[in-house]
Amino acid sequence: MKYIYFFEEGNKDMKDLLGGKGAGLSEMTNIGLSVPPGFTITTEACKVYIKTGNFPEGLWDQVLESMKKLEEKAGKKFGDEKNPLLVSVRSGAPVSMPGMMDTVLNVGLNDKTVKGLAKKTNNERFAYDSYRRLIQMFGRIVLNVPGENFENAMDEIKKKYNAKNDIDLNTESLKELVEVYKKIIKDHGKEFPQDPYKQLELSIRAVFESWNNERAKVYRKLNNIPEDLGTAVSIVMMVFGNMGPDSATGVAFTRNPSTGEKVLFGEYLTNAQGEDVVAGIRTPKPIAEMEKEIPEAYRELVRSAEILEKHYRDVQDIEFTVEKGKFYLLQTRSAKRNARAAVKIAVDFFHEGIIDKEEMIMRVEPSTVDQLLHPQVDERAQKTLIAKGLAASPGAGIGKVVFDPDTAVILSQKGEKVILVRPETMADDVHGIAVAQGVLTSRGGMTSHAAVVARAMGKPAVVGSEEVKIDMKARIFQSRGFTVKELDVITVDGTTGSVYLGAVPVSVPGLSPELREFLKYCDEVRKLGIRANANTPEEASIAREFGAEGIGLARTERMFLGADRLPIMQAMIMSKTKEERVEHLNRLLDMQTKDFVEFFRIMDGFPVIIRLLDPPLHEFLPKHLELINDINELKMKLRESKTLKEMDAIIEEINEKDRILRTVMALEEFNPMIGFRGCRVGIIYPEIYEMQVRAIIRAAVKVKEEGKNVIPEIMIPLVGIEGEIRILRERLIPIAEEESKGRIKYMFGTMLEVPRGALVADKIAKHVDFFSFGTNDLTQMTFGFSRDDVEAIFMNKYLELGVLKDNPFEILDREGVGELMKIAKEKGRRGNPNLELGICGEHGGEPSSIEFCHIIGLDYVSASPYRIPIARLAAAQAAIRHKKDLNK
Amino acid sequence: MKYIYFFEEGNKDMKDLLGGKGAGLSEMTNIGLSVPPGFTITTEACKVYIKTGNFPEGLWDQVLESMKKLEEKAGKKFGDEKNPLLVSVRSGAPVSMPGMMDTVLNVGLNDKTVKGLAKKTNNERFAYDSYRRLIQMFGRIVLNVPGENFENAMDEIKKKYNAKNDIDLNTESLKELVEVYKKIIKDHGKEFPQDPYKQLELSIRAVFESWNNERAKVYRKLNNIPEDLGTAVSIVMMVFGNMGPDSATGVAFTRNPSTGEKVLFGEYLTNAQGEDVVAGIRTPKPIAEMEKEIPEAYRELVRSAEILEKHYRDVQDIEFTVEKGKFYLLQTRSAKRNARAAVKIAVDFFHEGIIDKEEMIMRVEPSTVDQLLHPQVDERAQKTLIAKGLAASPGAGIGKVVFDPDTAVILSQKGEKVILVRPETMADDVHGIAVAQGVLTSRGGMTSHAAVVARAMGKPAVVGSEEVKIDMKARIFQSRGFTVKELDVITVDGTTGSVYLGAVPVSVPGLSPELREFLKYCDEVRKLGIRANANTPEEASIAREFGAEGIGLARTERMFLGADRLPIMQAMIMSKTKEERVEHLNRLLDMQTKDFVEFFRIMDGFPVIIRLLDPPLHEFLPKHLELINDINELKMKLRESKTLKEMDAIIEEINEKDRILRTVMALEEFNPMIGFRGCRVGIIYPEIYEMQVRAIIRAAVKVKEEGKNVIPEIMIPLVGIEGEIRILRERLIPIAEEESKGRIKYMFGTMLEVPRGALVADKIAKHVDFFSFGTNDLTQMTFGFSRDDVEAIFMNKYLELGVLKDNPFEILDREGVGELMKIAKEKGRRGNPNLELGICGEHGGEPSSIEFCHIIGLDYVSASPYRIPIARLAAAQAAIRHKKDLNK
Repeated sequence: MKYIYFFEEGNKDMKDLLGGKGAGLSEMTNIGLSVPPGFTITTEACKVYIKTGNFPEGLWDQVLESMKKLEEKAGKKFGDEKNPLLVSVRSGAPVSMPGMMDTVLNVGLNDKTVKGLAKKTNNERFAYDSYRRLIQMFGRIVLNVPGENFENAMDEIKKKYNAKNDIDLNTESLKELVEVYKKIIKDHGKEFPQDPYKQLELSIRAVFESWNNERAKVYRKLNNIPEDLGTAVSIVMMVFGNMGPDSATGVAFTRNPSTGEKVLFGEYLTNAQGEDVVAGIRTPKPIAEMEKEIPEAYRELVRSAEILEKHYRDVQDIEFTVEKGKFYLLQTRSAKRNARAAVKIAVDFFHEGIIDKEEMIMRVEPSTVDQLLHPQVDERAQKTLIAKGLAASPGAGIGKVVFDPDTAVILSQKGEKVILVRPETMADDVHGIAVAQGVLTSRGGMTSHAAVVARAMGKPAVVGSEEVKIDMKARIFQSRGFTVKELDVITVDGTTGSVYLGAVPVSVPGLSPELREFLKYCDEVRKLGIRANANTPEEASIAREFGAEGIGLARTERMFLGADRLPIMQAMIMSKTKEERVEHLNRLLDMQTKDFVEFFRIMDGFPVIIRLLDPPLHEFLPKHLELINDINELKMKLRESKTLKEMDAIIEEINEKDRILRTVMALEEFNPMIGFRGCRVGIIYPEIYEMQVRAIIRAAVKVKEEGKNVIPEIMIPLVGIEGEIRILRERLIPIAEEESKGRIKYMFGTMLEVPRGALVADKIAKHVDFFSFGTNDLTQMTFGFSRDDVEAIFMNKYLELGVLKDNPFEILDREGVGELMKIAKEKGRRGNPNLELGICGEHGGEPSSIEFCHIIGLDYVSASPYRIPIARLAAAQAAIRHKKDLNK
Repeated sequence: MKYIYFFEEGNKDMKDLLGGKGAGLSEMTNIGLSVPPGFTITTEACKVYIKTGNFPEGLWDQVLESMKKLEEKAGKKFGDEKNPLLVSVRSGAPVSMPGMMDTVLNVGLNDKTVKGLAKKTNNERFAYDSYRRLIQMFGRIVLNVPGENFENAMDEIKKKYNAKNDIDLNTESLKELVEVYKKIIKDHGKEFPQDPYKQLELSIRAVFESWNNERAKVYRKLNNIPEDLGTAVSIVMMVFGNMGPDSATGVAFTRNPSTGEKVLFGEYLTNAQGEDVVAGIRTPKPIAEMEKEIPEAYRELVRSAEILEKHYRDVQDIEFTVEKGKFYLLQTRSAKRNARAAVKIAVDFFHEGIIDKEEMIMRVEPSTVDQLLHPQVDERAQKTLIAKGLAASPGAGIGKVVFDPDTAVILSQKGEKVILVRPETMADDVHGIAVAQGVLTSRGGMTSHAAVVARAMGKPAVVGSEEVKIDMKARIFQSRGFTVKELDVITVDGTTGSVYLGAVPVSVPGLSPELREFLKYCDEVRKLGIRANANTPEEASIAREFGAEGIGLARTERMFLGADRLPIMQAMIMSKTKEERVEHLNRLLDMQTKDFVEFFRIMDGFPVIIRLLDPPLHEFLPKHLELINDINELKMKLRESKTLKEMDAIIEEINEKDRILRTVMALEEFNPMIGFRGCRVGIIYPEIYEMQVRAIIRAAVKVKEEGKNVIPEIMIPLVGIEGEIRILRERLIPIAEEESKGRIKYMFGTMLEVPRGALVADKIAKHVDFFSFGTNDLTQMTFGFSRDDVEAIFMNKYLELGVLKDNPFEILDREGVGELMKIAKEKGRRGNPNLELGICGEHGGEPSSIEFCHIIGLDYVSASPYRIPIARLAAAQAAIRHKKDLNK
């Protein structure tokens, strides 16, 4: 079994076997870029190791053999006291998991070879700096000695020698540090091995094992990465960025991953090893400065970047080292980017002719698009600036300050919004970033861990704000004279790099020109119409701005909740006779008409689906217990009242509350979700729907007379029985006709949300012009899941146990609910070939669900206003992905 | 258009056109039986009349023409002063609606013809009796003068002439009565027409109109008779049973309609017209006495009965009149009978070779069979007999005395059980009988209205109990020195004709030998297996007795509700750790094992499906409000407590209640029906199901060791997701194996009651051996109907409006729920070809639903023990009805 591939033997398509890093190094080697020699141990070897705890048969022999070959290429010998070969042992999984797994540098140094290295490079300080790094890294990663021991020792040495930074330490102090480090390891009952091959073996083992460390597991779970991929291990000849001022190490993106701008973006540190950049311990310099400082290497970087971008047809994230002026590429991979950059890059690549329209559309992950609609700090608002830093990930985040990831998780589980504030972040902090509204760090640059992770997650982040002084013990930070305690609220503006005290007003941005263009392309390829769920004229306006082609669901119940309307509604509900009810409803008629007028004006030329009253009537009344409480309190007051007049007033009040209470009790239900609501109420109290239909058509006539194009669609909720829709049609169409007098073309349809409705869709379809799938309720009834109860009590457990793969209230359940939708579509079209079919549940704004709607051939999806752009993109991607199906 | 058919022109298959009566008269005429001449106006004419309010074009001419022809046949002339022809104008719908519509007798009499009749018959008393009857009937039916006016006048005349009965009135008093009757009509602003043809015309109109009287409408609704059939009208030459002691009128059943015994059964009155018998005004004599009194006529009756029964291949209900010794048949129709008689008659007809086995099975309406299992008065019980009467309809009815049908309806709607007590019943009382537990009348015979209707409805009835003196004003009745007030409870024993004070102990009879034989035949033809839903060993025993072939659903939750178990269950629910829960469950394990042992012993050789815990846990805890109340009361007590010890005790009690309250609140749900219950609880708290499975298999092993054949089936409720059943199988089968050690063959399956379960049945079926459709919950979720709420709030309205034809919780909804069952069956068998399929919802005992189960090919139905006989019959009928489908 071949477990080892030299870089010359691999290529970019061998990620599964060689990991992303190995495949990248191979590919770069083969296209002639400057890469240090090396080889990769396959993920297959890792898988065996994970299963058995041992190297697979023959692996070690292959390692030894490959080291010989590497020695030849390098012209150095591993463990040689004169001319020692040093190697890095690097992790690299098939899927990028940046910073999650371990890497050991400088393997091959020991008490003897360090001297050879010093002599050979004529740089004793460098040699001992490299040695102390190896011991530190090996101690922490391979021997599991807690890292803080080394950091504390380093701090003491720095104090002792009065050095501000690591690089200020001289050779003597570094030699001392080597001994101190060795002692730390000994004190932990371990031994730093002097044998270079022992170092190599243990490092490989440690990298294999790092596949299963806690943070890697969390990251995989968070990113849906399979557990069984394993990591490859690349053994690469060391090149050194810490050999003096003409040496450097850095990372670069071929374009700006935050804005998408076409400029080299990145940072470097001279006289440093790679870990120094990523860890954010020293604040690195912007890449542009490199042009002056080490021009030769910079030109090589620019040239390599161009080649790589063209070669990979994507923006690359590059790691490089400059050793004494010579440029080496150590890694290339597809660059993580935020949604804004993703959109711009995709559009630019399209313009540059690198990719075609369809590939451009497929390049942007729909779920990330709503980052673009993240709230931004309102520029005109009054605010208290308390710090500035690097604008690492755009958007405004507001929340309570927390200083560690665990606290972030606990508070956010309680529904609190938090901002994670850390000196710098590490892989261990990822779960805290995931739940935070934003991140603030006092150290690190634009490619620091915090910056990269926040951008990938679309979280606002300000990093490297050095004026922020964090006191982890006191759990406060200070800046510009302000002291901010844990749980104080701050606002992090990742777009400008500003930090404000308190919650600053935010506003949602409109579509950027790039996004507008991008979505225009999406509109060209998608087959699904896109409508919005909008309950207010404001929402309708936003929806139009975001590209909605109509309203797929306007709920009318909220219109009854206004302070001027609720009392009328309550009086209507408590009416004893139809006449009384009609009287109250007549008062609501004008108000409803005005509501609809607004909708129709905004949606000029587009259809507007208005759903008649849906919730149970008791939702408009006070709660049972509340009323009993009120009545008891009034009775107490009665006892204490002194005048007859006072008593009379109280008694009257008691009687009124009692009257409401009795209505509430009569309407009380065991299972209101599946009780007296929707069209059931409309059938038993015909005058409610009659008023609503009158208001809809009356409003339509009015707006039409203003010269606008009005397309109302009247939607009946919760229909499951042919008789329901037949009776309502018989009652309501004459009223619509009476108001319309032939002037308005309207549609009459039903929301399909009861399983039975889908099963008898052929019969229902005969009475309607459209179906709109109400997948929220359809999911509840198909699963027999009361959403409130299920999500509160056992949904998480179900996901954890794998009973369900996804929460069906978020991602449409294709197998069950989707099956019903298919049945409904087929039967529905059988009953009425011209039936319009759409979806208005929350799923209408979720990419996977939208794809399903495309597959089964709905006419449109309807999503909440802020999800309209996502829906446009998801619909386009579905159309591209299922192109063949459509041609059938 | 031909609207009239003489009897010679019709036959028994023309019921739709001529009504049952017209078709019967025609058929009898044609097979040579003695029928007075006459003709029938078709239902088509009635339909036109109902629509337009007028006779159809040409009808009256046809009537006039036919009257001429009738005069020829009769040798008398209509309106002739010397030799007047009199006719009856009789209603008769295509479907029998006994007593619901009107009939007018003696049409053709007026001030002049009455004299002619007197002279011709030489019987002046008879002539005037006939005349006063015509005026009375015509006044009430045609002119809408309230009948009590005539009855009161009659009573006064009787008083005046000191006559006890109608027949005691002499000619003079009858003449006076004629004048009084005419005046009553005049006083109501009407006029009794002297023109015979006017009488005829108005009578025909009145009969047409009687199709739409209130009681007829109620009856049709109650019996599912279409509204648009209309009634035919037969005009028949009058023959008179009131022409002296050699005249009589009577009704007879060719066999006993109460027991099925093969003897002529009926009653007659000499010197009376038909109405006297049916109305129960005079108590008639048993038919057997006729043999001595008018032997010639009796022989003719016996001969006719035999001919008719053979001819119609069914028991007949005959009306006859004897005029001066000459026997006439006035009507024949299929005899209504109670279930007991229906079974015996069917079996006897089969034995007599008149019908074959399948026809025998089809002859009994399944829904009537549960009458056979009506409770009977326990003979050994202590009881207070307060009256005896005729045993008109068997069974024991217990309820509160009410004296009018409206009160009966109102109280029964409030859930009260009532006994309707009336001097006699009329068609207007039918809605009261329908809701009563039983009927008691003080007048009337075995064929009186009360007796016939009660038998048809399967209600216990004691009639003609003359010792019962009813005072309608005081609303009491007295008998044997007891005074019974309205709302006092009595027991009516229709099997023996006894009436008891208070509620007497009753017991349910076993199967009669006839029923046993009948059901054996059913078993021979049915394809569906029949199992029982039984929750206790007692129910299981009854189920076996009634022929169940196993248990289709044994709910286990009731086993947790015993006084010794509930506290343990509550402690289990409130446990904080798994260990605590397991400890409590271990205490329940032995108890559950004992429960199952009982089941397995009783069901030796038959399968027993045991459903694991299903209801939400909070159902085992006290209610929220109750607890708050308790706590508040304890707090009051605390304030008043005097010793420290007392206070401590109260505080402890408060804490305990508070602990329960917090658990209750945590488990509270918005929609418990679709919340945390069924397998969801079983998955989150594995130890509950583990205990139950252990108990089942442990019990099975024990009973098997006793030498019995044990077939346990473990059923998981509420499965809708493959993951649910997969996980439970993985957990539970090892436990079953651990207990069984290969000694027990058991099945593992699921209750299909979540719509999604049906939609993914192929996937679920891979993990199970059987599905059992839980159609109660499946109906709830498919419709989105919370049964408690829907039935309380709007189900009746839905039925009234025709939104639903039937209540889907009673009759399986084939269109929606049935469609899901079909999907589940097809997919399920695809996933597991050996899948056992059954139903355990309440529908499993309802004939139409059972038929559907047969059609879609389930293996068995499971019904509550008392519905097992119905299920056996319904399954057999389904097999016969769909024989062809099976041969496909």
